[in-house]
Amino acid sequence: MLPPSTTLGTSFARVTVIGLGLIGSSVAHAVRAQMPGATVTGYDADPEVRAVAQAMHLCSDVADSAGAAVIDAELVVLCVPVGAMGSAAAAIRDDLPAEAIVTDVGSCKASVLAALTDALPGVTIIPAHPVAGTERSGPEAGFASLFHKRWCIVTPPDGADPVAIERVSAFWRRLGAEVELMAPDHHDRVLAVTSHLPHLIAYTIVGTASDLEEVTRSEVIKYSAGGFRDFTRIAASDPTMWRDVFLSNKEAVLEMLQRFSEDLSELQRAIRWDKGDQLFDAFTRTRAVRRSIIEQGQDDARPDFGRSDH
Amino acid sequence: MLPPSTTLGTSFARVTVIGLGLIGSSVAHAVRAQMPGATVTGYDADPEVRAVAQAMHLCSDVADSAGAAVIDAELVVLCVPVGAMGSAAAAIRDDLPAEAIVTDVGSCKASVLAALTDALPGVTIIPAHPVAGTERSGPEAGFASLFHKRWCIVTPPDGADPVAIERVSAFWRRLGAEVELMAPDHHDRVLAVTSHLPHLIAYTIVGTASDLEEVTRSEVIKYSAGGFRDFTRIAASDPTMWRDVFLSNKEAVLEMLQRFSEDLSELQRAIRWDKGDQLFDAFTRTRAVRRSIIEQGQDDARPDFGRSDH
Repeated sequence: MLPPSTTLGTSFARVTVIGLGLIGSSVAHAVRAQMPGATVTGYDADPEVRAVAQAMHLCSDVADSAGAAVIDAELVVLCVPVGAMGSAAAAIRDDLPAEAIVTDVGSCKASVLAALTDALPGVTIIPAHPVAGTERSGPEAGFASLFHKRWCIVTPPDGADPVAIERVSAFWRRLGAEVELMAPDHHDRVLAVTSHLPHLIAYTIVGTASDLEEVTRSEVIKYSAGGFRDFTRIAASDPTMWRDVFLSNKEAVLEMLQRFSEDLSELQRAIRWDKGDQLFDAFTRTRAVRRSIIEQGQDDARPDFGRSDH
Repeated sequence: MLPPSTTLGTSFARVTVIGLGLIGSSVAHAVRAQMPGATVTGYDADPEVRAVAQAMHLCSDVADSAGAAVIDAELVVLCVPVGAMGSAAAAIRDDLPAEAIVTDVGSCKASVLAALTDALPGVTIIPAHPVAGTERSGPEAGFASLFHKRWCIVTPPDGADPVAIERVSAFWRRLGAEVELMAPDHHDRVLAVTSHLPHLIAYTIVGTASDLEEVTRSEVIKYSAGGFRDFTRIAASDPTMWRDVFLSNKEAVLEMLQRFSEDLSELQRAIRWDKGDQLFDAFTRTRAVRRSIIEQGQDDARPDFGRSDH
């Protein structure tokens, strides 16, 4: 066991957060809550978001440019959509201190690592992905406990400095997360199934339901408690972020989608040909997965997500 | 506005619940909570379930046979899987009082109406579907407030007695539900999209995720907070119930599934060909649906279903 990171002098005194949406603002809140000695400098490309962050006193300081935001940073956390990582990195290149570490929170890791390596030659880059979020967006959506007991997957490039890896890992642990190391490609396949495919399917079914002729939109909404409403939550997530995720993790998403479509066709065929036993078996084994998720503290055990207060 | 149903003498003094799973036990709880003057007789084909119900004092009385359970019933509520409705009805036929009304809670209405009409010639049958539930099953899963502020769709057959329709509607309103009348076929199309298709998709994706080779089951569970866990809740629902739903509402489910698959293929193609604008547009319009569901009180407005307590 390592002693607490501060005694090793590995903690960061000056953290810069670039991108102040749900995740960036949650990082800012969490740093202020969990690392009282650190200063947090924020920046967002959108002046309105900067003004909101300023008014909220989200950060110690909100800078007027990406360069000014990183000028004395020890750690830079890029919290922009994955498609914008390259340009966000390019915008800080000239002002980044030589010893600074750059990390990010993107949902795809291979493409982000490539973009950051390309934009920031010679810089210590330790990408990460906190598997946490809500369907809300923007600087006002963040909160300090977002990462609490969630996993943060750190995906260092081959040959990365072990001290830098440990400092970034310790940072996320300070914010409440449990840290796992993973190769970027493997991360992208895992997340394709646990996150990207579920979002794509949720977006699809909500779209399908909106386009029916015989069943009205108001009927869909009225009777959504039968199951549909569960899908609408993640289909309310940020469209820019998700557009970028699908384009950035294309191969893995398309492969998972192919498997899903095959499995769906099999159940479709079972319904068409009245194969009740096959349906029963398929619906039985899925219960065990839910049980494991609850046992491992990754979801609320209360029925109906605790919606019905009883 | 009608005065409260009791003053019209339309309330039921003796209610029999056949099938004491999640819904049946919730009906029993709700009747005892909301209709203190009424007796509730329960029956379940499974002797273990009867013993649990007995031990819980779920009903005024738990009968040893379906016939004995209905012998003096004014209202019989069939709460068995939709595929078992016909045999449950046949089991009460000989003992059912002539003036009793039979209703049910099945998730498919055309097939249930046909099965009940067939099994109970000359009986007043007013099918209904409370659009409420959780992923739990069994007599211990029920609770009195399950139907509170949820919709109950009453689907009377052509030419049904208006007084009987109103009595069944008033019963559900007493249990806390809001009642809507609908033709059985239309009900089945509406629920195919708001409930049946979501369940089929959830069961499928949980199965797909369980079958991967490169990504382990434990990784799927560990990183499920990225979206996947939302699907596991409804994929933990009762397998017998859902097998029956898909076989009973086959045509409508297959049609919705066809539309869903077309829409999914379109998004798949957009990903493959880097059509970011198309993805962005698709992901933007789905947000409005979530907003409407929350505005109409059909879901919890708290982010992440209120899981993160902040």
